[in-house]
Amino acid sequence: MQDPSLSGVIKPEVRGLTAYTLRHFDAEVKIDQNENPYELPMDLKREVVERVLRRSWGRYPEFVPSAVVKTLSKFTGWAEDGILVGNGSNELIQASLSVTLGPGRRLAVPQPTFTLYKLMATTLQAEVNAVLLDAETFAFNVDKLIEASRSADVCVVCSPNNPTGGLLELEALKTLLKNAKGLVLLDEAYHEFSGQTAFALLPDHKNLVVLRTFSKAMSMAGLRFGYMLAHPEIAREVYKSKLPYNVNIFTLAAAEVVLEKNAVLQRGIETLICERERVYAELLKRPVVRAFPSKANFILIRTPRPSRELFERIYSQGVLVRDVSTYPLLERCLRVSVGTPEENDKFLRALDSALETN
Amino acid sequence: MQDPSLSGVIKPEVRGLTAYTLRHFDAEVKIDQNENPYELPMDLKREVVERVLRRSWGRYPEFVPSAVVKTLSKFTGWAEDGILVGNGSNELIQASLSVTLGPGRRLAVPQPTFTLYKLMATTLQAEVNAVLLDAETFAFNVDKLIEASRSADVCVVCSPNNPTGGLLELEALKTLLKNAKGLVLLDEAYHEFSGQTAFALLPDHKNLVVLRTFSKAMSMAGLRFGYMLAHPEIAREVYKSKLPYNVNIFTLAAAEVVLEKNAVLQRGIETLICERERVYAELLKRPVVRAFPSKANFILIRTPRPSRELFERIYSQGVLVRDVSTYPLLERCLRVSVGTPEENDKFLRALDSALETN
Repeated sequence: MQDPSLSGVIKPEVRGLTAYTLRHFDAEVKIDQNENPYELPMDLKREVVERVLRRSWGRYPEFVPSAVVKTLSKFTGWAEDGILVGNGSNELIQASLSVTLGPGRRLAVPQPTFTLYKLMATTLQAEVNAVLLDAETFAFNVDKLIEASRSADVCVVCSPNNPTGGLLELEALKTLLKNAKGLVLLDEAYHEFSGQTAFALLPDHKNLVVLRTFSKAMSMAGLRFGYMLAHPEIAREVYKSKLPYNVNIFTLAAAEVVLEKNAVLQRGIETLICERERVYAELLKRPVVRAFPSKANFILIRTPRPSRELFERIYSQGVLVRDVSTYPLLERCLRVSVGTPEENDKFLRALDSALETN
Repeated sequence: MQDPSLSGVIKPEVRGLTAYTLRHFDAEVKIDQNENPYELPMDLKREVVERVLRRSWGRYPEFVPSAVVKTLSKFTGWAEDGILVGNGSNELIQASLSVTLGPGRRLAVPQPTFTLYKLMATTLQAEVNAVLLDAETFAFNVDKLIEASRSADVCVVCSPNNPTGGLLELEALKTLLKNAKGLVLLDEAYHEFSGQTAFALLPDHKNLVVLRTFSKAMSMAGLRFGYMLAHPEIAREVYKSKLPYNVNIFTLAAAEVVLEKNAVLQRGIETLICERERVYAELLKRPVVRAFPSKANFILIRTPRPSRELFERIYSQGVLVRDVSTYPLLERCLRVSVGTPEENDKFLRALDSALETN
């Protein structure tokens, strides 16, 4: 190589980035990643495995995974040519940003939110216009977001928002869609817990792209599956940047089986929603804890204690939560996924004990 | 949206692209995708399945898949912090290009070769400097490639090259590495069939990135697994653009088991190499067929017949090959994967019969 120092080989925007990482901790109660604590039933898992054992592993998946796209089309009511599937919804977010962003192009994004949007846009050398949430309530700052979207090629909104839990109301979304210069990517990773989806806005808003994941309510985080609903004209362009054969035969089979037997997940989701409300009400009883209302499967809390210290004290009791205090606006905040009733009780006890300690 | 026509929302470079697609054909003998016809043994598949059934599917994979990285480190002899795993090697190619290419940056790439490199670089708005293979032999045009690499941020070489089968000799690669301005991505997708790897050049060439896949010799195309070997400083930067949790728990388990029991694949690989030489020798006996020497698990042929017509005539006899005649330089060419001895015989018979027909 002409220049052994590698300077210049990697784009400066990338060199300046801190990678998205997560330290691994083992714990009895793991409520740090917004996973679904209700595992898929063993008979469903066996059905997936049997289907996969009948297939050849040495052959590529179908170029277009038509069976699962057809099933998703029935499940959602959206046309097959407006559906893309991905290796988690992350891949489809990345593909959507890749076909729209570059130097001189701009992403509008609420802040704080899921870290990856900004990271991906920066790698693409796009400008990032971060619109802070309301500093007091962590609600979306709708007017400022709409203003930012007028000059942005893409606006990404996670609703309910991770890690704060707030929802972008459909009326606000409509106004955003009407005013946005470019695409509006709506990450509905947590929509099953919110009682709201923007699905009904798709037919009349060609710039709306809805992203969904099987990692949360669908209890398939380990298998990586997500999908995108968009106008076919948009789907066709995003398709160009997603990888060929991006979803393997095992995950395709699992997604199909889970969609066919979707009802088995329903009770777990309802329990998680009830538990979210119960834990929230419990937290409100604690005068030193501020809990923020959530429409997702997690709750953001703020306490007077430094987050790292509180995190460690809770963790020492076997409960793993997420320290989000390094996010903008979120000092002294922790994010707590909603677990099973027993897990949530353990968390509440661990929190109380951690707050008592001097 | 302010502009309902969507013009401008999608980057013009992307709008101008034709997506990478492959029409689906069913066939008795499928030799169109360079897959391994020797399926993994059922006891190995059952071992993978049992490991996966013991795991929770609702939990994310480990953030860093240390078990498989450690196994790969032992398997290859390369340090763990210089290894990245991906959803197929395609993801790691994409990630490598994402951190290095953008407008004003340049990719040097032989032509014809695997389609995806150019597609990805174009999406990233980079300039593509295509260096044609020798028009007569389809060998790499080493001098021109080295010349192009002097002003390229990345040079991608697939060796053995898909779809032509030629190898970039290690001495030529060394000169390329010494002269290249930026990274040299060496796609070793077919290296197991070639008796050559650039692995030994890694320690002394910080700009060398070696990509490997489990889709060919390792008989795991359906599961999507690939890995990258590079200097840790480079791996750290490419890591920033690969997706978190990019490889699911099933594929991770399968990769581990296949690496542990790697010996079971060896006989199949040896048979495929013998068969490649046998089919090549057979083809040479046919005066109207030009066969190009290959170090991969496929052979490129040229005949006097239009490719589409010949493809259809072969396909009508139950044998699916790949028509590559739309690639630069490759008019009247077909690419034929090496199958089992029986499959290869069927192909040869189908070819003869197709060439006889008027």
